[in-house]
Amino acid sequence: MSQTATEAKFISFEGTEGVGKTTAINSLCQRLTDAGIDYVRTREPGGSPFAEQLRELLLDTKTDINDDTEMLLMFAARSDHLAKVILPALEAGKWVVCDRFVDSTVAYQGYGRGLGDAAMLNKIEGLINQFVPRLPDLTLWLDLPVEEGMQRAGKRSAADRFEQQKMAFFERVYQGFSQQHQAHPQRIHRIDAKGEVEDVAARIWQAVSPQL
Amino acid sequence: MSQTATEAKFISFEGTEGVGKTTAINSLCQRLTDAGIDYVRTREPGGSPFAEQLRELLLDTKTDINDDTEMLLMFAARSDHLAKVILPALEAGKWVVCDRFVDSTVAYQGYGRGLGDAAMLNKIEGLINQFVPRLPDLTLWLDLPVEEGMQRAGKRSAADRFEQQKMAFFERVYQGFSQQHQAHPQRIHRIDAKGEVEDVAARIWQAVSPQL
Repeated sequence: MSQTATEAKFISFEGTEGVGKTTAINSLCQRLTDAGIDYVRTREPGGSPFAEQLRELLLDTKTDINDDTEMLLMFAARSDHLAKVILPALEAGKWVVCDRFVDSTVAYQGYGRGLGDAAMLNKIEGLINQFVPRLPDLTLWLDLPVEEGMQRAGKRSAADRFEQQKMAFFERVYQGFSQQHQAHPQRIHRIDAKGEVEDVAARIWQAVSPQL
Repeated sequence: MSQTATEAKFISFEGTEGVGKTTAINSLCQRLTDAGIDYVRTREPGGSPFAEQLRELLLDTKTDINDDTEMLLMFAARSDHLAKVILPALEAGKWVVCDRFVDSTVAYQGYGRGLGDAAMLNKIEGLINQFVPRLPDLTLWLDLPVEEGMQRAGKRSAADRFEQQKMAFFERVYQGFSQQHQAHPQRIHRIDAKGEVEDVAARIWQAVSPQL
């Protein structure tokens, strides 16, 4: 069944490290293909050639730029990604499956780096309101305890001081996703990311299939 | 006489093409040197190593990115420029003399490219409020009719269609500076940029010297 422009959906995946986003996206894309749905798979930061250039710049100089500069660059990249990839795909009737979107900015910059500071969250909200003309129709937040995710990602060898700080950072990021979920319960679905890959994939499909 | 931190001033120069900004800045810097004032001369977009990287990116891909992306990059560059160059200089008691600052964004992006669209001007104002912690103490708007400036800059050979469009663009930019001047009469001084270089320099010094 071919999709018309109005039916095309924009789906984003969110979550902390090691929750299994890549695997989950793979499985959703496979099911979309099986259902005969045309889609574009993309990611943030990046997703368009210019935004990928900004991504490299961000990664290269990360330690050198302040929070405001980083945030503005993120939204510059997002603006290009929206204009060049996401909106044209949706207009052409293609679904968009995006690895991270605005909620990651709230969680990582606002809660992780910004410690949930109200002024910082206000800035992010202002940028979303002014520069993000289209939010996802459905956001899948893969919910897994931070420690379990870090073990899965193989990032937690021993609980030294640096690891403890990293844990504290990701705990704040987790709180950010949880807050976003509470603030936008219609858009953001919590997916239990524990257990077998197939079970998680089934839970995701259960959330997505009503959109078909 | 040495300057203390509280006395250091932040001065920006604004104006359309060919109004004589560079010459005017040269003469002000000479007078500051003569008065024994320590200063940093800088420019926008750019002014810090990372912001200059963004400037290059902006110039390289200018035709390819949309207005929002460009605006966000401008403010990302400005945020870095403020954090790395402008604020540290002022804190160290040095004056800052900057070739273009926020008013150029309003005039070029808001009025020139954005046609004075209210939504666009709102976006710029929001970015200034959120991401520009320090405005200039004094802004010198070099006011010269657009046509005269373009003749000076040697940019207007014949009034073909492209030149006409360029004229219309710069007329809008001029209106932008004029509007900013009316909106912020305390900060933005209008400097008559007609006549001899020495006369313009004298007018500028008359505006700046009360700040000493």
